[in-house]
Amino acid sequence: MAQVLLGKEVADVLTEELVERVAKLKAGGVEPSLAIVRLGNEADDLSYERGALNRAEKAGVKVKVFDLPRDLPQEDLEQVILEINQDDSLHGCLIFRPLPGQIDEEKIAALLAPAKDIDGFTDGSLVGVFKGEQTGFAPCTAEAAIAILKHYNVNLNGARAVVLGRSLVIGKPVAMMLLQENSTVTICHSRTKEIAKAAKDADVLIAAVGQAKMVTPEFCNPGQVIIDVGINVDEEGKLLGDVDYDAVEPLVKAITPVPRGVGSVTTSILMKHVVEAAERATD
Amino acid sequence: MAQVLLGKEVADVLTEELVERVAKLKAGGVEPSLAIVRLGNEADDLSYERGALNRAEKAGVKVKVFDLPRDLPQEDLEQVILEINQDDSLHGCLIFRPLPGQIDEEKIAALLAPAKDIDGFTDGSLVGVFKGEQTGFAPCTAEAAIAILKHYNVNLNGARAVVLGRSLVIGKPVAMMLLQENSTVTICHSRTKEIAKAAKDADVLIAAVGQAKMVTPEFCNPGQVIIDVGINVDEEGKLLGDVDYDAVEPLVKAITPVPRGVGSVTTSILMKHVVEAAERATD
Repeated sequence: MAQVLLGKEVADVLTEELVERVAKLKAGGVEPSLAIVRLGNEADDLSYERGALNRAEKAGVKVKVFDLPRDLPQEDLEQVILEINQDDSLHGCLIFRPLPGQIDEEKIAALLAPAKDIDGFTDGSLVGVFKGEQTGFAPCTAEAAIAILKHYNVNLNGARAVVLGRSLVIGKPVAMMLLQENSTVTICHSRTKEIAKAAKDADVLIAAVGQAKMVTPEFCNPGQVIIDVGINVDEEGKLLGDVDYDAVEPLVKAITPVPRGVGSVTTSILMKHVVEAAERATD
Repeated sequence: MAQVLLGKEVADVLTEELVERVAKLKAGGVEPSLAIVRLGNEADDLSYERGALNRAEKAGVKVKVFDLPRDLPQEDLEQVILEINQDDSLHGCLIFRPLPGQIDEEKIAALLAPAKDIDGFTDGSLVGVFKGEQTGFAPCTAEAAIAILKHYNVNLNGARAVVLGRSLVIGKPVAMMLLQENSTVTICHSRTKEIAKAAKDADVLIAAVGQAKMVTPEFCNPGQVIIDVGINVDEEGKLLGDVDYDAVEPLVKAITPVPRGVGSVTTSILMKHVVEAAERATD
């Protein structure tokens, strides 16, 4: 029986710390505020937004939602971003992605003020992750994975870490962050041969491929800690991770469930970034 | 007996291609030009500069050397960089690093025009490497390692690649470039446990730790291709790679020597970047 690494415990500790920092900011006349930019009413976006609003309330962070039509033209979205950049009362900006087809995502990323990019969207944030510097902000989900490992005192120093997935949102950033923690990092992906064999010796396994139940017992060893970043929906609408949880859980040392794992921590990291951005802006 | 992957052959093919591109540029009235910024007369810098001047002549690239005192104040170096940025007749700029202690290297990197950064020094270039996009220019040595592998038709697609070293100049960029080629990439470093064991299964092994003869037979297998990026000098002034060449060479499939390996290709990549920068500037 594995230790189940619940996200709630991590999120609660993170939020507790934030409450104090928010109080300090407010005492100085600053109300940390997040702009959420949403185009249309995609179910995933709305679900994440609900979680963010809930977490923001707990942390004492103000949220302004820009609820925009899905078919918004590029120029109008650019106008909104410029408005947010110029508004000193907004410290961070989350833009739901992927953006619809008419939007040039790279152009929007180039427009957003790096100081307000609290989800690793801009080049300024990404290069900080690559260099291992605390300049911008890492993508929240990648940082949530690391936060869980740290909260549960998983040793990363010298650990063999295997990352399944090489996206810019999770795979690559989480690999760089593990490297920063002195793990030996292997990045696997769709073209990896014998992927189960590559994963089998991992002390820490990060699953971020977006493929339900792809991590099976052949990927695992009894000392392994698994962080399941996958969020997949099956035919019956049930949420599934990238790990075949029922088959794998009895065989490893620790594992995050889906739901109630990484997803529960992401919005706390988002709030942490907003508070940090507000602190940096008032320094 | 391993195949010896000589750099000269790669450099010559690269230069041949450049000669044609340079002719085209010159026909259009553009003479591709490189600014080299050197502070003082460090032996390594002078040796690299000689190689660069030689390669530039072969390729038809003009070089302007800014030969500055080692104790140059920060402001004066900033002035030189601004001058280079503004000079349309200079397409690329190589600044020898590490810069002496009085210089704030990050500040200089932030100042250099990304379009002229032909050696992966600026954030603009590094984020391109991280994202796997051809926006800036990768560090020349990292790209030289990949160029050798490609020239000798080493299969990278699905290959197990192990990178020893995690520097921003070689380890991290070469890892990202191998990932871009669909290799499964493991990054090892000073904190890696059982590093020889981690390297042993590699199809492609990149040694970039800066420690003479650290790669020994326990790191190797008969199908392995080794790229030795190390340049170390022993007590007698002899150049040594990171690989214990005499011990390892009989045991692997292919290997680059030191000298006459990666180092022979780096200046060709530098010239390729200058030509590319000139082409981009005139597009």
